[in-house]
Amino acid sequence: MNQLGLYCSRCSARLPFRYQDMKCTCGGTLLVNYDLEHLRKTLKKEALQTRYPSMWRYRELLPVSNPDCIITLGEGWTPLIRLQKWEQKLPIRQLWIKREEQNPTGSFKSRGFSVAVSLLKESGALKAAVPSNGNAAGALAAYASRAGIAASVFIPSDCPPLIAEECPLYGAETYLVDGFIHDAAAIIEAGKQEQGWVNVGTLKEPGRVEGKKTMGLELAEQMGWTFPDVIIYPTGGGSGIIGMWKAYLELKALGWIDGPMPRFVCVQEAGCQPIADGLSPDSLIFRAEAAAQASPTGMRVPQPPDLPLILSIVKQSGGTAVALTAGQIAEATQALGAQGISSSPEGSATWAGMLALCDSGWLRPTDSVVLFNTSHAMKYAKSVNFTTLATIKSYADYKSLKLKRE
Amino acid sequence: MNQLGLYCSRCSARLPFRYQDMKCTCGGTLLVNYDLEHLRKTLKKEALQTRYPSMWRYRELLPVSNPDCIITLGEGWTPLIRLQKWEQKLPIRQLWIKREEQNPTGSFKSRGFSVAVSLLKESGALKAAVPSNGNAAGALAAYASRAGIAASVFIPSDCPPLIAEECPLYGAETYLVDGFIHDAAAIIEAGKQEQGWVNVGTLKEPGRVEGKKTMGLELAEQMGWTFPDVIIYPTGGGSGIIGMWKAYLELKALGWIDGPMPRFVCVQEAGCQPIADGLSPDSLIFRAEAAAQASPTGMRVPQPPDLPLILSIVKQSGGTAVALTAGQIAEATQALGAQGISSSPEGSATWAGMLALCDSGWLRPTDSVVLFNTSHAMKYAKSVNFTTLATIKSYADYKSLKLKRE
Ligand SMILES: Cc1ncc(COP(=O)(O)O)c(C=O)c1O
Ligand SMILES: Cc1ncc(COP(=O)(O)O)c(C=O)c1O
Repeated sequence: MNQLGLYCSRCSARLPFRYQDMKCTCGGTLLVNYDLEHLRKTLKKEALQTRYPSMWRYRELLPVSNPDCIITLGEGWTPLIRLQKWEQKLPIRQLWIKREEQNPTGSFKSRGFSVAVSLLKESGALKAAVPSNGNAAGALAAYASRAGIAASVFIPSDCPPLIAEECPLYGAETYLVDGFIHDAAAIIEAGKQEQGWVNVGTLKEPGRVEGKKTMGLELAEQMGWTFPDVIIYPTGGGSGIIGMWKAYLELKALGWIDGPMPRFVCVQEAGCQPIADGLSPDSLIFRAEAAAQASPTGMRVPQPPDLPLILSIVKQSGGTAVALTAGQIAEATQALGAQGISSSPEGSATWAGMLALCDSGWLRPTDSVVLFNTSHAMKYAKSVNFTTLATIKSYADYKSLKLKRE
Repeated sequence: MNQLGLYCSRCSARLPFRYQDMKCTCGGTLLVNYDLEHLRKTLKKEALQTRYPSMWRYRELLPVSNPDCIITLGEGWTPLIRLQKWEQKLPIRQLWIKREEQNPTGSFKSRGFSVAVSLLKESGALKAAVPSNGNAAGALAAYASRAGIAASVFIPSDCPPLIAEECPLYGAETYLVDGFIHDAAAIIEAGKQEQGWVNVGTLKEPGRVEGKKTMGLELAEQMGWTFPDVIIYPTGGGSGIIGMWKAYLELKALGWIDGPMPRFVCVQEAGCQPIADGLSPDSLIFRAEAAAQASPTGMRVPQPPDLPLILSIVKQSGGTAVALTAGQIAEATQALGAQGISSSPEGSATWAGMLALCDSGWLRPTDSVVLFNTSHAMKYAKSVNFTTLATIKSYADYKSLKLKRE
């Protein structure tokens, strides 16, 4: 058994491990505790070097006890690519992008669900459900089918169709919901008793945060056991930020890194920006109605389950939050495309946020910056009609078309 | 310099390295030669263990001399996943799937273009063009933009729209062609002088075969320096099969593996099956008109540039070729989906081929089998309309819909 129970991220209370209830009586979020003092003595970071490049190389820091229950589809150890050309143009020192879209389900959500579904398996659960803007639904669907667990997914009806259609491909029971992600969550809460669903929504169980934690562990290892100065992350429910912050704390406790916490920057689309709103001294109370205006992406989570925790992480790290317009995000997709990288709106938002923080002077010439490309462009396709491409039959056609365009 | 020039795969002639002409005077295909005797002494396979998990870990066996010219977007070291559940149901010993869709451009084509574009960079080329059923076009587009090289891509107009639309996202000049892939190739040949294009089509330059070779190197390393008994691969132009066969020969020459060559099985869709046709004693001459009937996938290559080489590899390995119906391929997509794996028609065809060869008794109870999932389902989406999914507003809606369906 790797874990030593749970602790509350708000009041520090310690509890035995339980796995379908992550709310402390104080209202804080419960997180998994490990015996880091023991691991500090028994596990050396050098030992990882010859392990297989998968997020399960960090198994001692993951809560699955029975190795036979690990449900893997090839998640983690995604490439970290340096964007040298832009380093020269921008007032920062180093710029990297972590290609989370190369995970098995085309998004970073594979990580969380690899752990969550392994825990489901370990607990003997037969049915799981998730409310999702799409990528979490696809990831649950894929990992559950691999594990032989029945999945039900509930997706706001304006979300990207291809992402929703992926779920029945993986064999999940798939419903669109007329509402936001919290409306989808309400349906699961209403039905979970009767249907026997385990709700694997954000912060409902321990696995997803722990899986996302591996983004931070991996980033540190890939950078030679250091963290960058700044991490820019597209934030929705917040478990990515919470996971990477936890990675920092654990690596520090293990003595595998030193140096300050990376400054966490949350990017969202303007119109649904609870984190930027929450950081602003003027508007400490979030206005949920604003949510109606942002595009349906993974960043559109009007009511994150533990907003105070996200805000406290951002603040203690010296980070910030940026709300970008849909136009800035679309331009960023082009900019990343022109560097050979296919990015979803969420991934593109990190680029747009980076540019905005360069402009404002918040990013410094000494900063190393890592962007998280959490998914790829294709999943978000709005149409499959050729609107822009010309059809030719010969080289002569090519030449005459080209002449016309010039 | 890693390479020692070229050799002809048909007449064994040896030539100095040249890089835009891979046809021998005898009509055979020229391939890159390495100093394997020297490497056998200087490079130990154990030395690879601590190298970064990328296909460039095999740099001594790749033809790029100047490390500064390597154009990487995070390609290779894709997961190899065991499909245990099916091993019990099928009359084979082991079943694996290599998840090539997790490459940076969503298909195995990333590998070939990482090497091809690195060579372009090294040679100082400024413009490149490719005829492609889609995935090669996207890969050229991505790697070229990363390298600062202008890309022009020509795609049969009935190919999957999303794959074509990916190319302008990466900044490539993109044309649809009213015809097959060889018609697209003819346009490039007609224009290459005038436009200054380097044609990076299949077997036109050495990089793509060498890049695909890493699938074989990697597979052997991931399986503990052995090959499986059988490799099932969706074949179009054939450079994947040629590359993996070359990997076998080189690993053997290095003394890193022993054992027989894996039996190579080529799968294609019925209606465009030059390899199955070529193997059949009845029809040694391929009927190009049959091509009109197969779906527009990467397997639809009516006229592979070196069919005799593919046939000779398949024969010497003790392999075979299978033509599957579109129906069998569609069912295979469902079967893989139900195991949590998103597969393109090409990847699905390997599953369908495996089932057919189990049925026929060609696969044996002692065989270990590896399937190559060369791309994912989403790229091939035909529509983005929800046709099958129901929209609900409440748990009551869920229940009443469910009742109706039962
Ligand atoms: C592609 C993508 N990026 C980012 C997010 C937000 O991530 P988190 O829930 O970790 O805040 C999501 C969540 O749906 C997503 O799908
Ligand atoms: C997804 C996919 N699979 C397989 C192939 C065929 O590969 P090869 O050219 O190596 O025969 C292609 C080629 O376009 C492809 O795109």
